[in-house]
Amino acid sequence: MEDRGIVGEFALIDWIRRREGKRSASSWTQLGIGDDCAILRVGATSDLLVTTDMLMDGRHFLLEQDGPEAAGYKAMGVNLSDIAAMAGIPRAAVVAVALPRGAAVRVAQGLHAGMSALAERFGVDLVGGDTNAWDGPLVIAVTLLGQATARGAVRRAGARPGDAILVTGPLGGSLAAGRHLRPVPRVDEALALHEAAPIHAMIDLSDGLSSDLGHILDESGGVGAVLDAEAIPIHADATDLSGRDGVSALLHALNDGEDFELCLAVAPDDADRLLAAPPAATRLYRVGAIAATPGMWLRSPDGRLSPIAPRGFDHFRTEG
Amino acid sequence: MEDRGIVGEFALIDWIRRREGKRSASSWTQLGIGDDCAILRVGATSDLLVTTDMLMDGRHFLLEQDGPEAAGYKAMGVNLSDIAAMAGIPRAAVVAVALPRGAAVRVAQGLHAGMSALAERFGVDLVGGDTNAWDGPLVIAVTLLGQATARGAVRRAGARPGDAILVTGPLGGSLAAGRHLRPVPRVDEALALHEAAPIHAMIDLSDGLSSDLGHILDESGGVGAVLDAEAIPIHADATDLSGRDGVSALLHALNDGEDFELCLAVAPDDADRLLAAPPAATRLYRVGAIAATPGMWLRSPDGRLSPIAPRGFDHFRTEG
Repeated sequence: MEDRGIVGEFALIDWIRRREGKRSASSWTQLGIGDDCAILRVGATSDLLVTTDMLMDGRHFLLEQDGPEAAGYKAMGVNLSDIAAMAGIPRAAVVAVALPRGAAVRVAQGLHAGMSALAERFGVDLVGGDTNAWDGPLVIAVTLLGQATARGAVRRAGARPGDAILVTGPLGGSLAAGRHLRPVPRVDEALALHEAAPIHAMIDLSDGLSSDLGHILDESGGVGAVLDAEAIPIHADATDLSGRDGVSALLHALNDGEDFELCLAVAPDDADRLLAAPPAATRLYRVGAIAATPGMWLRSPDGRLSPIAPRGFDHFRTEG
Repeated sequence: MEDRGIVGEFALIDWIRRREGKRSASSWTQLGIGDDCAILRVGATSDLLVTTDMLMDGRHFLLEQDGPEAAGYKAMGVNLSDIAAMAGIPRAAVVAVALPRGAAVRVAQGLHAGMSALAERFGVDLVGGDTNAWDGPLVIAVTLLGQATARGAVRRAGARPGDAILVTGPLGGSLAAGRHLRPVPRVDEALALHEAAPIHAMIDLSDGLSSDLGHILDESGGVGAVLDAEAIPIHADATDLSGRDGVSALLHALNDGEDFELCLAVAPDDADRLLAAPPAATRLYRVGAIAATPGMWLRSPDGRLSPIAPRGFDHFRTEG
């Protein structure tokens, strides 16, 4: 391969995206690689959302400790979170699994129970799949299809200078506390917010606020962000973890992954309105604002700005 | 779990299917679990086809021996074969991978090259994915979306007594000869056949003729099949394998998996017409006929009938 310079996951995704961007064979493709979901135009008016996530034993869950229901729940949950990030309506899923031989049927039934709990709650039909058994660890790949509303899908691109940056819940410590196994996908919240105000850009927080907000900035083209240190909602799990590992709770809130809350950019007066009366009882925190110059900055209470490095999760770097 | 009686892959799929059949939350679902693709009605008129297949190193390919391009080619090829089996037009794919750590980028680029070869040929956009690295073997899950033509998708259900059973190529010995790595999905052939005559039922031969034809019989409800021993096209690979393992070439043609040819049922006069002038230069072999009584039978040249047991691939039973 010529591209020996590629070292990380996001560089690889960019490499594939550049190659794919050059050819778009199908008239269906409205938005390809690089957002939470792809957008396909199938009929005259319908925008179809497509997302896929793969979970592996030992990496995204521990089968022995957490059990198959938790793995199934999380596999469906993280995909629902991607549909939420586009303010879409989830519709149908296909599931492919590599099951540990010997326990294949028991594990498959547990996975199904965990997935069904979320699928039923969010109106998702399980319409197909592929079942395999092997001597390796459990692997689950869910592909979820959804539908954009009449307001259109919300992309990562679209944040404008001056926009308020909001998040839908306290952040940090999810992995250490096991909260990552029980994400509550913000599907209803996203639909209600998008109905109440135009959302300029949105992403779900899977890799960590500093990384995921970085994606919004990159995609929105030449904008930056200033986050207010005192405004970032810190989860109790982050505080607990900080007591054990000595890393500040704020850094955990900025950099830990798998919160599965939403991060969105809206016009400042829309933010005021949404914060005053959150639709669908959505928890909302204003954490900062989009800036006209690139970069990500943390503002201390004394007004001092310090740069934030994206420290979120890179699947190629981090040990499982 | 109450269902301790489930021992095989197909019993598990039935178990899930029964549970899913009871609830169909989304108005999109026209056809759920149990065919080569799901059928979703997205817009007013568009039927969307969805299929997913997962391939694992050591099971569906040998990464060390075959290389990542072959794995990528096969992963796309088997999914295209499922779209072909519904006589659909492939449109867009998402790909989730668990890459071996250390070689993650090199393997990903090889996979992409192998997939792109087929994707470009068949007009498929790669619109999204999920990249992970781990200490386990390479796992690839492709989900392919396609579109039914105005004639509608061809299902497994629909074979009628008297129908001719056709296959699109010689069978057997694919795995032993390595042919399984280079399937040429019969997308164009399926579209041309469906344009030329109403196809009553169709499936792609992934698990073996005896198993896959069995699915058509099961889904078509209370019908059977008689296959003519002398009419079954035997691949040279099956003859070679027979010389080595002593199992008859005919049994290899009946039971070996991964031929990725199509098996279809059409009215007998349509079969005559198609065989006389195959559309799109499709190879066509008439191997038997659908019978009014359940069961699958092999007719010897002397007219004697012997029962055929489905001996194809069960992912839960067979060693990898």
